[in-house]
Order: sequence, then structure tokens, then C-alpha cells
Amino acid sequence: MTNPSLLILPGDGIGPEVMAEVRKIIDWFGTKRGLAFDVSEDLVGGVAYDAHGTPLHDDTMARAHAADAVLLGAVGGPKYDALDFSVKPERGLLRLRKEMDLFSNLRPAQCFDALADFSSLKKDVVAGLDIMIVRELTSGVYFGEPRGIFEEGNERVGINTQRYTESEIARVAKSAFELAMRRGKKLCSMEKANVMESGILWREVVTEIGREYPEVELSHMYADAGAMQLTRWPKQFDVIVTDNLFGDLLSDLAAMLTGSLGMLPSASLGAPMANGRPKALYEPVHGSAPDIAGQGKANPIACILSFAMALRYSFDHGQEAARLEAAIERVLADGVRTADLMGPDDGTPVSTSEMGDAILAAL
Amino acid sequence: MTNPSLLILPGDGIGPEVMAEVRKIIDWFGTKRGLAFDVSEDLVGGVAYDAHGTPLHDDTMARAHAADAVLLGAVGGPKYDALDFSVKPERGLLRLRKEMDLFSNLRPAQCFDALADFSSLKKDVVAGLDIMIVRELTSGVYFGEPRGIFEEGNERVGINTQRYTESEIARVAKSAFELAMRRGKKLCSMEKANVMESGILWREVVTEIGREYPEVELSHMYADAGAMQLTRWPKQFDVIVTDNLFGDLLSDLAAMLTGSLGMLPSASLGAPMANGRPKALYEPVHGSAPDIAGQGKANPIACILSFAMALRYSFDHGQEAARLEAAIERVLADGVRTADLMGPDDGTPVSTSEMGDAILAAL
Ligand SMILES: CC(C)[C@H](C(=O)O)[C@@H](O)C(=O)O
Ligand SMILES: CC(C)[C@H](C(=O)O)[C@@H](O)C(=O)O
Repeated sequence: MTNPSLLILPGDGIGPEVMAEVRKIIDWFGTKRGLAFDVSEDLVGGVAYDAHGTPLHDDTMARAHAADAVLLGAVGGPKYDALDFSVKPERGLLRLRKEMDLFSNLRPAQCFDALADFSSLKKDVVAGLDIMIVRELTSGVYFGEPRGIFEEGNERVGINTQRYTESEIARVAKSAFELAMRRGKKLCSMEKANVMESGILWREVVTEIGREYPEVELSHMYADAGAMQLTRWPKQFDVIVTDNLFGDLLSDLAAMLTGSLGMLPSASLGAPMANGRPKALYEPVHGSAPDIAGQGKANPIACILSFAMALRYSFDHGQEAARLEAAIERVLADGVRTADLMGPDDGTPVSTSEMGDAILAAL
Repeated sequence: MTNPSLLILPGDGIGPEVMAEVRKIIDWFGTKRGLAFDVSEDLVGGVAYDAHGTPLHDDTMARAHAADAVLLGAVGGPKYDALDFSVKPERGLLRLRKEMDLFSNLRPAQCFDALADFSSLKKDVVAGLDIMIVRELTSGVYFGEPRGIFEEGNERVGINTQRYTESEIARVAKSAFELAMRRGKKLCSMEKANVMESGILWREVVTEIGREYPEVELSHMYADAGAMQLTRWPKQFDVIVTDNLFGDLLSDLAAMLTGSLGMLPSASLGAPMANGRPKALYEPVHGSAPDIAGQGKANPIACILSFAMALRYSFDHGQEAARLEAAIERVLADGVRTADLMGPDDGTPVSTSEMGDAILAAL
């Protein structure tokens, strides 16, 4: 039997340095736990543009399709700001999501006990927080047509189209209900049905799918109220399901609540492949952080936890994922901190690779 | 000389009870400060639907056009949830905004000293917070065509259109720069130019307008990063300008940061009328709060502060507005609290009308 394949796309900014730590962890699981992967690496984002004039080469796209799972670092940076929209680093990531049809983006917002003090929110508001945002990832205003900047009369007009079909809503809703069944059995769906017809359809379809999950307590909230309630008392939520654009804002907001932005992973899942595994891409929620790139300051934990999600969702090794997560909790409890997890007076932070080594040691 | 005219639209839910307190304040300014208004009242939202089968009667629309300023309470409630989209309470409000062409929605997020403890955020993060969100209010995905739910193949598809012309962006940007000039001279514009062409145009036009305001320090942020940064350290901002939908979420988020949702007013301004005053509608940021409607529990301060904004922006009585705001601060400093401003163990709250009376006494 061949080993499962992992395609690694470190990308831009801090992507390569955090991914180097993930490689150490992957190696450890290979030698110590008998979980060997066929790992290969390729380019995405600005570095792909530098090499090939496109943020995602067709060959890379093909390798992503063929891989059992893809692990991505981050894309983008000021160096590429002036590029044409069609070749911006982000387009590489969006093409991966779209062509692999990764419609269900799981973004846990979890507050690590050792870091509860680090949030801008009061400790009692966030301590123990553990919610999951399911964001639709392959449709909506990110991909809807018509789109572009057009001449009209004697001025320009910028147009994007929010567009959701019933089946697009149904499949992401299903994945959210399934997750809710394995968690607290509470699902809150967010849209702006009071203003947008696409939100009305969203609410209807989610309600319909809900009939198949009578055990799950379903509620609906306008997205603006959702932003408020996430800020006021996030623990009222268990699983949240929402569209691509609202999910972009709300999941970043939820991530920031935890005070642990450098800590949060994500999984983007599609339909099952022939081998039964879902099409899958794992990436940290944090971006490329060009301001600290190449300085060994970045926190590799979000990317390492993304690999833990891969163990759980792609390779059915939930136990091993839990082992990795426990090691990280232990390291944090011991007070090991990268710079992003410290206040100005909290002493000396460890480097990216020191954090990776500490996690290895805890394993 | 005739008195300036004020059209009052109490609307639904707690709208009528908070507006009753505003009426007391308006009367006080008439008798004690010689600022008499010709006040008239009419229906909007669910109550208008109940009376006329439409959430905004054409006669009311005409009176709003003719008024020197409009003061609105709130619209909406579960009673109207099943209504067709075209006659939902919200459509009444949206029609007012659109037909009066109120393109610039000012939403201050201000943390009242006496209430800093009440935020879910840490005190040092929000104490003294004073930012202004300028939200475009008459375009974008709220009004763009095509829109609706259509049949396609054998399923339905929900469509809305995000659409901004250069001139729409330019005029709201100008109003934001003007405000920044009168405040801290810092403006941050938020969009998703990395994903949406309408965001690219937005960024370009705001940058162009910025050339006319060299004193204002202009920055750009993706809206998801904006949600994060507002949560992490809101005091980094002075004025924020953004589109209709992002503004809806981000201003609610900013409002919730202050812990003072029942405290926050808004002004929606359009072009100058023949008399030099801008077309204007003032309303509290909080909604109709149907769960507490009719119980005398609502906090009237947001609506009273909306009248203060009317004094300032429509009637050039900044001094009188400041007088009213100071009275409110005094009442809060004295510990007078409606239920929304109290924790469970904080004693007995005052009623809506007791709060109104306390403010009158402080005046
Ligand atoms: C990089 C960008 C295209 C992306 C998005 O908007 O989806 C990012 O913000 C995210 O949330 O993964
Ligand atoms: C009531 C609703 C239509 C409205 C909006 O979405 O604009 C409200 O949320 C607001 O922010 O004023």
C-alpha cells in the first residue's frame, strides 16, 4: 500500500517558515507513529507569480486534484499589490477552492485556556469558548457573474454578483448540520434575509434541510446581529453556518475574539473522492503577515493545528490529531510563547522554530 | 419666520415608547431654549402595513421629503416575518433612505465613561473610544439590480447585485473626508478589493478624492481585517468609510464594542435642500426589540441622542446638542440606568420614562 499524499503549498510571507515547522511534525508522525505521508511541495500565490507569471500553475492545480490533502501556508503581500486583479496572489487560493469545489470551510474559534487573558475581550466572555463557523467557500459574491469594472455613461461602475443556488446552499447546510450533530446540536444560520433575496433563499433551504436533523436546534440571525452577538456573548453559539462573504468577516471576527489569531486552523472540504476521502485543503486563518516575514517571529501553531485537522478530517486519525493538540496545549501551559502571544512586558518570546521544537518535545 | 419642521416616525416595537421621551426633550428645547419645531407624526414599518397595507405610504414619503428633518424610531418585528419581502417593515425604511437619497450614514461608536465596564471588551480597550463609521446607504447590494429568486434548470437561485458607480463612491468619500477634517484627520476605507472588483473601484475612487484632502491620513483595509482590528484595538481608528453591506455589519460590531448599544444614535444625510439643510433622517442604531416592547424597559437615550445629532447636523445648533449630550452624561454618571445598562446584580433599573425625566431634570 502506498502512503497517502500531502501536497504542501507554503506560499508567501510567513508561509514558508511556519510550514517548515509543520514538516518537522509530519516527519515525527511518520517515524514515531507509523503515519508516513508522501509529501511534495509546490508554489502558490506571489511566489508562483514570480516563477510562472500566474499565482497557480496548471501543473500545481493538477497535483492538488491528485493529492489526498493539500496544506497551504498563506498568500499575498504588498509586493503584489499593484498586480492586475487576475494574477493577484489571492486568485491562486481562490482557484484552488473553486476547482477543488471545497464548498465547506470549517473555522473553529477556540480559546486556549492558557491564552484567555490575551483576548481584547473579558476573560469570562471568552474562556472556554469553542465554536465552529461553517462558511460556504465556492460561491456567492466571490465567484458570481457578471463581475468587473464597466463604463456606463461617462463613469465607471464596479459590479459583483451575489448568487446562490438551492443545491449550493443545501450541501453546505448539510455539512453544518452533520457537524452540529457531532458537537452541541445547535446551529445558527446567518444572512440578511431582511434585505437580500439570496438571504431569503438561504434561510428557506437551511430550514428545509433542518427537517432532516430534528435533533439539531436551528436558529436564524441577521448577519449584522450575528456580528453583535458574537462580540457580546460568543458562547451562546455552537455551530454557525453562513455564506462566503459573511463567513469571511464573521470568522475573522470570531478568530480575533479568542485572542489567538496565530493559533487558529481551518479546513476546506469538498465532496468525497474515489478513495472515500473528501477533497480537502487545510490552512491557517492568519494571513501572510509580510511585516514579520523571514524574521523567525511567526507563530507556527495555526499551521500545525491545520495539519491536525487534516489528520482528523482527511485521514481519520482523530486520536493522533488529539495527541498533537494536547502537545500544543501543554507547551502553552508551560508558558512557551511566540511574540504574537505576548504583551510588551511579558519577557522574551521564542522563535518560530523554537516553538516547533517545543511541540516536538511535548509529543 | 416659521419653525423648522420635524417629521417623527416612531415605527414598531420600542419605537413609540422611546420616541415619547424624545418628544418631552423636544418640548423642553421649545419652551426653555426658544428652539420650537413644527412636529408632526406618521407611520412607518409594520404599523404602516397594518394601517395601509404598505410599510410606507406615499403621503408619508411626501411628508418626509418636505420635512426639514425626519426622526425615526425602529421598524420590524416577528409579527411581520411572514410578510412578502416587498411589504416587510424594513422596506419602509429602505424606501426612505433611497428616495431621500441619504447616501451618508454617520454611526458614531462612542464609549461612555460611566459605561466602560459594561462592554464585553476589556476596559482599557474601549474606555474613551470615539470613532465614526461613515456607511454608504443608498446603493450597493441593498439596491442593485438584477435581484430576486429565479428558476434555473430545475432549482431556484437567489441573486443580488453589488453595484457602485464612481460618483456614488466619490460623494460618500467626500463626506467622510470632511468629517475626518473636523475630527482626528485619519480615515480608513474598508472593502474587499482582493476579491471584488467593486472593491477595487471603491479603493481607487477613495484614493482619488483623498488627493483633495492632503491633511487627512488615508489608509485602506480589507473588511475582514477591519472586523478583526475593530475587535482587537478599536482606538486605532478615527473615521471609517465603507459600503452599505460592510457598513451594516461593521457599524453594529463597533456599536457593540462600546457596550452601549441602547446609547448609539445615527444620522443619514443627503444633498443640501433649497434651504441649505441636508436631507436628513435620524434614528437610533438599536432595532425594534420586540421582546421588551411595551414594557417600559427600553432605553430612550439612543433616540434622544439622535435628536441631538439633528440639532447639530440639520439645525446648526451644535451648542444645544452638546448641552443635551452633557445632560445625558451627567445622568449616567449619577448611576441612573435602564435595564440594558445593568448586570443581573446591579439593583433596580429605571423605566423608559424615568430615564427621560432624569435627562429633563439634568437639562
Ligand atoms: C485571502 C483572501 C482571498 C481570503 C478570503 O477573502 O476568503 C481570506 O481572507 C480568507 O478568509 O481565507
Ligand atoms: C433594518 C435593516 C434593514 C437595517 C439595514 O440592514 O440597513 C438595519 O440593520 C440598519 O443597520 O439600519
